[in-house]
Parts: sequence; structure tokens; C-alpha cells
Amino acid sequence: MANVDPDIQRHLLEHMHSPRLVGLDSMNYWIHHKRPALLRLLKKINIYVANDQEARALSGESNLIKAAKCLYSYGPKMILIKKGEHGVLFFSDNFIFSLPAYPTDKVVDPTGAGDTFAGGFMGYLTQTKKINAQTLKKAIAYGTVAASFNIEDFGLKRMSRLTLKVLEHRLARFKKYVLF
Amino acid sequence: MANVDPDIQRHLLEHMHSPRLVGLDSMNYWIHHKRPALLRLLKKINIYVANDQEARALSGESNLIKAAKCLYSYGPKMILIKKGEHGVLFFSDNFIFSLPAYPTDKVVDPTGAGDTFAGGFMGYLTQTKKINAQTLKKAIAYGTVAASFNIEDFGLKRMSRLTLKVLEHRLARFKKYVLF
Repeated sequence: MANVDPDIQRHLLEHMHSPRLVGLDSMNYWIHHKRPALLRLLKKINIYVANDQEARALSGESNLIKAAKCLYSYGPKMILIKKGEHGVLFFSDNFIFSLPAYPTDKVVDPTGAGDTFAGGFMGYLTQTKKINAQTLKKAIAYGTVAASFNIEDFGLKRMSRLTLKVLEHRLARFKKYVLF
Repeated sequence: MANVDPDIQRHLLEHMHSPRLVGLDSMNYWIHHKRPALLRLLKKINIYVANDQEARALSGESNLIKAAKCLYSYGPKMILIKKGEHGVLFFSDNFIFSLPAYPTDKVVDPTGAGDTFAGGFMGYLTQTKKINAQTLKKAIAYGTVAASFNIEDFGLKRMSRLTLKVLEHRLARFKKYVLF
């Protein structure tokens, strides 16, 4: 559920028939002005996707692990904190996972990187049979690499001509960049 | 070579008999006030270790990959940029490597985390037979995990009672946190 008024998000959720996995995005405006509605909604979703500032604002915690634990206590069993150029942190009841951003100097416009990450992440999960630690980690890696393409040009220019083959080629390189 | 006046560092280096690997740290004061001396010294060392602000200040580049490429052009064949809670970026002529910080909510005092990282990194390399991509990556992971202990208490309190066994136990967990 992309970032709109939590009451609209709730309304949308009520019209879904047994969704397999519900991810929710939000932002500072709703966190500050519709906090009770947002907190009610968090009880009904599986993955809360937030950037670091949003995670800190909603939890009141500066340390991101503390923030993730707090957000987890609000309901979602999975917390995904996006840190822009610093990568991502995933927190759940049975594992923690963290990746840096894809190291690149080709940055034309970072607008939409977080949404591209979320899209790549959810998109990868839609075609997996199981949702477990292994597929979630892989989904995070796909999202990370997807975002690295989006920032290479304005708007959807780079994404519109991206192929899965090219994405997976960069994914293989990324794996080498973080494997020790 | 720990962070002092680059002229003192150069003097020290001139007294070393064919060192195997020379790492150099510096800081904003020398970058701004003794830049020519620092640049002369960079031509003679193997690894330049800097935090993100220092890397940006010395290179004039905001993007850290661009900064690393610029610093590389100054001489050192390996550039290691420390990003505090956001982890580390390694750049060399034949590979790039990046790790997030060890995810932890036990942060009492971050003072000395970067130095502990550098110590763990160089310390690991002192006992390897070869210095190659594999051992450098592992050294970066050791440094990352060493730093995660240092911040758990003031001064050297936590480090003074740290054993290699405990460090390696956390290293194994860290590997799970970043492996996809």
C-alpha cells in the first residue's frame, strides 16, 4: 500500500480478499497528523516500509535497531528501513538483515529510489513460492539493485528500458561487493 | 600510521625498513592545513583510511565512489572509507567492497569506533599470509565487528575484556546478516 492517508489505506485493505502479504509505506505528514489511524493500520499489515527519518519519527528512537524493535511492537512482523545511499535494514522476529546501497557514482536523480526499492522488493516476492528468510533477503537485494538503476536518470527513463537480464547481471556483481 | 601531522608520518615511514603494507589515517585539520604534505605522503602508502567527511574534504567529491576514485588517483591503491553507523566502503584497482555496520542497539559511546575498525582491519591482515581480495574483505568484516564491541562501553572497557572467540562468534552472525 503506497503512501496515502492511512484511512484510505485501511479502506483499500478492507476490500482485499485474503492478501498473501501486505506491505505499507507512509510518510512524515501522516506520522505527525494521523498517528492514531496509522497505528491502528499497522496492526493489520505484514511489512512496514519506512525510510530512516520516518522510522525515527514514528518510534521516537534514534538508533535504528531500537526504532525497528519499537515499530515491530506496533504490529508488523517485518520492518524494512530504507536509508537512501546508506542501504537498508530489515528486522523481523527471526532474523535481521542489512545491505549497503549498490556502490555507484552514476547518480543523476535520487528521486524515487526508495519507491523503486519497494517495488523491486515486493515484485520479487510476488513470484516466489515461499516467503522466508532466504526469499526476503533476495527480495531486498533485488530492490537495492533496482533502485541503483532508477537514480541513473530522471523520472522513469532508466527503468522503462531496464531488462531483467541487465538487473540480474548487476545483482551478481553486487553479491561480490558484499560477500566476505 | 595513525593520525598525526603528515610530516611526522613521513618521518616515521622513512624509518621503516620495507614495510609489507602501509595504511594511513588523517583528519580534517591536516587535510585543510597541510594538504601538500599529505598529498606527497599519499603517493608512498598502500591504504588510505578516511571517514566519509575526510574523504569528501580531501577529494572535493560528494559521491563516495567519485571521492574514492579521486583519492585513488592521489596514489594509494586501496581506499577505505568509514561511514560510522552506515558501515564502510572499500575501493581498489581490482574490486569494490561495501559492508553495513553491525546492526546493534547497544551503543553507549561511539568514540573510537573508526580507530577500532582500523585496528581490527590491520590486525587481521598482520596474520594473513597473503593480502588479496579475499583477505582484505575478511579484514574489513573483522574491523566492522571489532568496532561493534568498542561502542558498547566507554573508553577501552569493552575491548579490554574481548576475546577472539567472542569476536568470531559475532562475525559468524554478521555474515548471516548480510548474506543473500
